[in-house]
Amino acid sequence: MDEAAKKTILRMIPYGLYLLGARDGDRQTVATVNWVTQTSFAPPLVVMGVKNDSGALAMLKASRTFSLSMLKSGQKDMAYAFFKHVEPEGGAIGGFPFAPAENGCPIFPDAAGYVAGDVLEIVERGDHSVVIAEVKEAMLHEEAEALTLKEIGANYGG
Amino acid sequence: MDEAAKKTILRMIPYGLYLLGARDGDRQTVATVNWVTQTSFAPPLVVMGVKNDSGALAMLKASRTFSLSMLKSGQKDMAYAFFKHVEPEGGAIGGFPFAPAENGCPIFPDAAGYVAGDVLEIVERGDHSVVIAEVKEAMLHEEAEALTLKEIGANYGG
Repeated sequence: MDEAAKKTILRMIPYGLYLLGARDGDRQTVATVNWVTQTSFAPPLVVMGVKNDSGALAMLKASRTFSLSMLKSGQKDMAYAFFKHVEPEGGAIGGFPFAPAENGCPIFPDAAGYVAGDVLEIVERGDHSVVIAEVKEAMLHEEAEALTLKEIGANYGG
Repeated sequence: MDEAAKKTILRMIPYGLYLLGARDGDRQTVATVNWVTQTSFAPPLVVMGVKNDSGALAMLKASRTFSLSMLKSGQKDMAYAFFKHVEPEGGAIGGFPFAPAENGCPIFPDAAGYVAGDVLEIVERGDHSVVIAEVKEAMLHEEAEALTLKEIGANYGG
């Protein structure tokens, strides 16, 4: 395989940036993800690629629930806050105020909004797992342009 | 669930436009898709949401191979040519010249390039199936900006 071509082609895929929220009992965490796509209208499904050794994946497996907050253009600082494992501290997580979705996963009032629901299936085939999840709740805080990988000048793919 | 919020939030996800190529023996087809994300670096995996009743999905199931050509900014006409089921006619498909990838799936020399490989798993959970596929070959024709749903002024999601 032409590795350089593979990298260039796969990096052409446009990505937004999202804060994946997960919980396990009273513990909560948030991870920045970009490998996200819808995969069904009815039921509304989303697929996320989540790093195998992440605290977020362990919590998704434990509680079978998730949230996904949509970052807005300009929120680069929020995206960067969750590249490492974080847990709540004094009413904030990663330094940003959060609240629970109905299912208890952490969401961010400062984001454009969120979807949340149940993890249906986790397929482990690579260095990230394919998490197939059903949207059961949604809230719009502000209609906005999405923050993109392109805007923050980063690549995660290839 | 707040259906309007769900639609608005899910439509914030940015999408490129791709020509999914499939074959079954000597038959070939191409379908325009946008629900695509990478989900692993090693092995390089991609996930595609493919309509359950599509000819493309039937061929993916039959041959367990795929190709994915990356459309370039400006190629709206190519995206629209494959919203319906098409098969080859006189060296072209949907009116556009094509060639076979190494695995026999149709690819387009006019696109930015393509990845192709094997279908590993198809998860049927909604009105589209989650197709998990491994990239085994890649070719870059021209480094370019991706054609996006935003550029063509369409939505497919929500």
